Amino acid sequence: MLINLLVGGPEAVLPSGFYEWAQTQPNWVGADQGAVRLLAHGITPCLAVGDFDSSTAQEIAMVQQQIKRAVIDPQKDDITDTEMALRYIRHDFPGVTQVNIFGATGARMDQLLANLLFVLKPEFEYFLDKVKLYDRNNTVSFYRPGQYTLVKEQGMKYLAFVPLTPVQGLELPDEKYRLPKTDFLLPISLSSNEFIGNKGHFTFSRGVVAVIQSCD
Amino acid sequence: MLINLLVGGPEAVLPSGFYEWAQTQPNWVGADQGAVRLLAHGITPCLAVGDFDSSTAQEIAMVQQQIKRAVIDPQKDDITDTEMALRYIRHDFPGVTQVNIFGATGARMDQLLANLLFVLKPEFEYFLDKVKLYDRNNTVSFYRPGQYTLVKEQGMKYLAFVPLTPVQGLELPDEKYRLPKTDFLLPISLSSNEFIGNKGHFTFSRGVVAVIQSCD
Repeated sequence: MLINLLVGGPEAVLPSGFYEWAQTQPNWVGADQGAVRLLAHGITPCLAVGDFDSSTAQEIAMVQQQIKRAVIDPQKDDITDTEMALRYIRHDFPGVTQVNIFGATGARMDQLLANLLFVLKPEFEYFLDKVKLYDRNNTVSFYRPGQYTLVKEQGMKYLAFVPLTPVQGLELPDEKYRLPKTDFLLPISLSSNEFIGNKGHFTFSRGVVAVIQSCD
Repeated sequence: MLINLLVGGPEAVLPSGFYEWAQTQPNWVGADQGAVRLLAHGITPCLAVGDFDSSTAQEIAMVQQQIKRAVIDPQKDDITDTEMALRYIRHDFPGVTQVNIFGATGARMDQLLANLLFVLKPEFEYFLDKVKLYDRNNTVSFYRPGQYTLVKEQGMKYLAFVPLTPVQGLELPDEKYRLPKTDFLLPISLSSNEFIGNKGHFTFSRGVVAVIQSCD
């Protein structure tokens, strides 16, 4: 089962034409202000989760009235809106196979980094190969060790490999800038690579690698 | 000696009123399109560095005519514009004590991450406690193990601690969300903390921590 999750980050960096597209997609979940925005665009999420501390009383009432399953928890501990939403998604949809996340990036760098690095936490490691982040200029996927084929996404120009942990034996055999099997001890962003043609391969034997496709 | 460095990232996320402020500041260096933009705003950098592959012939001619020391290198290897600029800054200004970096963040997440993580590379480790990144919503500083006092910056609301490497004994004794001495094995963004009052302290005994002050 595929879930689409809208978090409450700045709307300016949502993919172009986001809400029109979103209206054609099933299985929306709204995290915090993301739930309010989905309702405002005629999309009723099947689940709303958040502390809603930046929402008005009227917005919270709307969420409670219109969304069947609305979890409003002002004490959401030490976790982010994204993490709280994923915790409930796992609980409510045990068959979840993919979560496309929107609105998780934008102005604040601490939130952006939290939304990139949560896959390294033991609780959310389950989602590592199931989540994908989308914004206007980037898509981000996460990989466990293995051999992979990447397909160039429409509108994207650049391709980057980002070891988030110590990574062993990362090899880029057929990208514009090739890399022989290399170990990385610390996080690094191998940025501004590109596909040659429509596909590219990569392989590594230990650690976690984020792959970013991006455009200017 | 303080150096101000403008890199060629999206202008929309530069701090508000950037160019007016920049005109009052000394010692500018322009990386790639950053050099062109400084000239366009009446600021002549003392050094321009980059491959200038996104600049027009006219822009490159302007850089060569107006900037005394212009390093235009189409073969800049595997390093980013920021890294190339810092390499030359270290060479040309051996007394450099601080580099304030602007234009290093923005739309592309691979570039943003490269500009956050380069301080972990042996070549640029020298700059770790000397660089600070600024954009419209964030300031980022980097710390080696030690005891520190942070001062709340004007207009910023949030405070985040981001272990970029394994970190030992991180303690937040007097922030809104306190943390007793804790070890982190993997990168994590401890986001959305806040100052209580105007100052906050933190300490850790091993690793590298980025500190982000941010606003919505």
